[in-house]
Amino acid sequence: MTAELPTPDTTLRAMQAIVGANACRSGDADTQAYVTDYRGIYRGQAQVVVLPASTEEVSRVLQWCHAQRVPVVPQGGNTSLMGGAVPDDSGTAVVVNLSRMNRVLAIDPVNDTMTVQAGVTLSAARSAAEAEQRLFPLRIGSEGSCQIGGNLSTNAGGTAVLRYGNMRDLVLGLEVVLPDGRIYSSLRGLRKDNTGYDLKQLFVGAEGTLGIITGAVLKLMPQPRSSAVAFVAVPDPAAAVALLGEAKRLSGQAVTAFELISRPALDLVLEYLGNIASPLQERHDWMVLVELTSGTDAESLNATLMEILESGFSQGLVLDAAVAASLSDAQTFWRIREEISDAQTRTGGSIKCDVSVPLSRIAAFVEEASARVLELVPDARMVIYGHMGDGNVHFNPLRPKDQPARDFLTQWYEPVSALVDGMAHAENGSISAEHGIGVAKRDDLTRYKSQVELELMWQVKQALDPLNLLNPGKVLPAPGR
Amino acid sequence: MTAELPTPDTTLRAMQAIVGANACRSGDADTQAYVTDYRGIYRGQAQVVVLPASTEEVSRVLQWCHAQRVPVVPQGGNTSLMGGAVPDDSGTAVVVNLSRMNRVLAIDPVNDTMTVQAGVTLSAARSAAEAEQRLFPLRIGSEGSCQIGGNLSTNAGGTAVLRYGNMRDLVLGLEVVLPDGRIYSSLRGLRKDNTGYDLKQLFVGAEGTLGIITGAVLKLMPQPRSSAVAFVAVPDPAAAVALLGEAKRLSGQAVTAFELISRPALDLVLEYLGNIASPLQERHDWMVLVELTSGTDAESLNATLMEILESGFSQGLVLDAAVAASLSDAQTFWRIREEISDAQTRTGGSIKCDVSVPLSRIAAFVEEASARVLELVPDARMVIYGHMGDGNVHFNPLRPKDQPARDFLTQWYEPVSALVDGMAHAENGSISAEHGIGVAKRDDLTRYKSQVELELMWQVKQALDPLNLLNPGKVLPAPGR
Repeated sequence: MTAELPTPDTTLRAMQAIVGANACRSGDADTQAYVTDYRGIYRGQAQVVVLPASTEEVSRVLQWCHAQRVPVVPQGGNTSLMGGAVPDDSGTAVVVNLSRMNRVLAIDPVNDTMTVQAGVTLSAARSAAEAEQRLFPLRIGSEGSCQIGGNLSTNAGGTAVLRYGNMRDLVLGLEVVLPDGRIYSSLRGLRKDNTGYDLKQLFVGAEGTLGIITGAVLKLMPQPRSSAVAFVAVPDPAAAVALLGEAKRLSGQAVTAFELISRPALDLVLEYLGNIASPLQERHDWMVLVELTSGTDAESLNATLMEILESGFSQGLVLDAAVAASLSDAQTFWRIREEISDAQTRTGGSIKCDVSVPLSRIAAFVEEASARVLELVPDARMVIYGHMGDGNVHFNPLRPKDQPARDFLTQWYEPVSALVDGMAHAENGSISAEHGIGVAKRDDLTRYKSQVELELMWQVKQALDPLNLLNPGKVLPAPGR
Repeated sequence: MTAELPTPDTTLRAMQAIVGANACRSGDADTQAYVTDYRGIYRGQAQVVVLPASTEEVSRVLQWCHAQRVPVVPQGGNTSLMGGAVPDDSGTAVVVNLSRMNRVLAIDPVNDTMTVQAGVTLSAARSAAEAEQRLFPLRIGSEGSCQIGGNLSTNAGGTAVLRYGNMRDLVLGLEVVLPDGRIYSSLRGLRKDNTGYDLKQLFVGAEGTLGIITGAVLKLMPQPRSSAVAFVAVPDPAAAVALLGEAKRLSGQAVTAFELISRPALDLVLEYLGNIASPLQERHDWMVLVELTSGTDAESLNATLMEILESGFSQGLVLDAAVAASLSDAQTFWRIREEISDAQTRTGGSIKCDVSVPLSRIAAFVEEASARVLELVPDARMVIYGHMGDGNVHFNPLRPKDQPARDFLTQWYEPVSALVDGMAHAENGSISAEHGIGVAKRDDLTRYKSQVELELMWQVKQALDPLNLLNPGKVLPAPGR
């Protein structure tokens, strides 16, 4: 098929005619930032990188690529961990980067909705909502770079899913350019619409394999009137789960975040940050960061938090707790949680497993998987943290201090990931709770999905993208594997 | 194609061999309840009605029907308003009624999930959750008869969507028998799972045209610790929307229900109920039923409700208000709201329009559409009520007192529905906010959906059901219309 493709020059000229010369990048130097993922793990090549300025331009780019059978890789902020947003190394693809489509088109504070182009960054979207005294609740580490189109295409999660759901739960309408250039639009801001198949669901979490999301109507929420945050030491993961149960029972739906932090995770981030001390005086093996938010007054919410902690103490679920006395305290607690990821990246040599299991199994899973990993790699630092309230932890064994990152990953990446993923799967869990599949876990799906699931995925793919032009090689393992 | 179909006798014997003779119904008398909708509007015919007892039986029924090219109509509680759950009058279909698959399979109170067979009624599901001190929040009028499978297939809404979302938002996993008998299952209870396309979304709201839902994992919530309910008179729909804004601002996400009730709707239900008086002393044109629920104490929540009402009074948004002083009061307020539908059915001659528009347009829509309908039918009783908080009202002009139902509907059903639906569509609204499409509104989609939307719906249908055997003639207008 490669032989039939237009030459890079032809493609470049065609793209220049559509988006303008200034919005095209070609040649290794100019395309490098777009064909390499931000961790530098996935490196590919592209014929051309285009940065369209409008949905109409995206449509014309896809029409041309469809007619010429040129594969297309959609790209937002390029913050994927799974290699889903960069092309393969065949050099055949056109990368369509949405960064220039970065306008907030409308905010309707009465309807509690915001209409955005796909290239708006998450932090820009959050700020725009805040300016209207509204909350857009998605909260993930890469918010300054990641874009709404990517958040939608990967069904992003983060630290407020417990209260507000994943990105899928936060979208009311989409505009999508289909593989042949047709434009599907449901940018209407309706909370109820049962007129046939809910087509937008197809594109959420599809990682750009079925079309390119160019716009969205997002849900906004009332801003909470008060929040209460505590950094809590617990004896073990089971106690953390039991404490969450108490928090839900005593606060209704006020629990917004419930994040687990293992001792090695805390040590790593405190060392990385340098100037910040643990909120707790003594060393503990397990901590949780709890956040409640509500529409009632702060006094009442703080009383609820104290009630939860006291109930936890009296049942032996809480060993110690620091309650944020100020916004600044709360920010420090959150900073400790949020910097774990960067601290790992700087340390290097971390095996990232992003698993989920039912909440009733998460404690046992963490204990058992840790024990099994430590049998294999006795000195691994068990950096385990994240969204326990959703049954999701980032389970990231880190290299022993005296082993170089490369050696550790070469030796242990495969066996440790397979072990952890396999154990999660055996608990009816997921091998990718929020990071998606990309190319990194594509072939693992043959082990962890049923035959029927794989067949259905291909039936959908072939229905929408029969020529397999949209983000080819991502998400779906080759049929018959 | 009919000529090639097996004879009813052959079909009956085949079905008997799969589900047993006791679980098959044939002949006009025995099938009547299954081929007629509950309002008696849609009457069809079936070769056989089968009541399978297991997913395996459903699978074998569908395998046989697929091999023989026999159309299949899935059926739950048969409470659809749109003719979506009964066969056409060709007499070719096998009706698969799920009523015998009515077991709650598991409740996991730590994971806050419940696994059910599709034939469990909504009220049974709610009761099972309650027995574990949990809430399953879907709340619709037909809860005693409707089934979870039907709730999922129609993405049911109701009076708690404002807080908890539609049925789509309440499901974590599905088991579905596909048109050829294959079984797709994701009954895993995960809140986060980004491993490829979220296939279950295909079947939610598809009205049984892509497969038969046989089981589901549903989300449970903490039971609220307190609730506060008020029956409030407002000057007009715009004031109601502004009051909702105040309620959201002052209570965060405590607003669980915000239901509009027009004067003719209240009159109708008070007359119907006989022994219940209006909660308000004076007559008003517009009322709203407001419910707050929260995890904090009742005192604090009542204070929030009073703060909302006082703010409303001071801004002229509230004319009068009755606050429920007891559970019994709250039940009475709710009964008034919930009996409106039955009161209409008994009165007869109501043109049911189930429309939604963005919340910022709902007040203008109600005013303008009412005026336009009254120009056509000056004595129509404007029964308008429902889920204003979601931008959704049941906009149901009712026959004048002195005009028989049949005459009124013959004369006005078509022009009034077309007027109201057209006005909703012009406001970027939906012509079926929660009732679905069935056969009743199928052909209207050609007017209100874009060509791309209709094409995509057919692309999905043909991918999953290429022989068009599952609930044929429902939801999708014939291509090329």
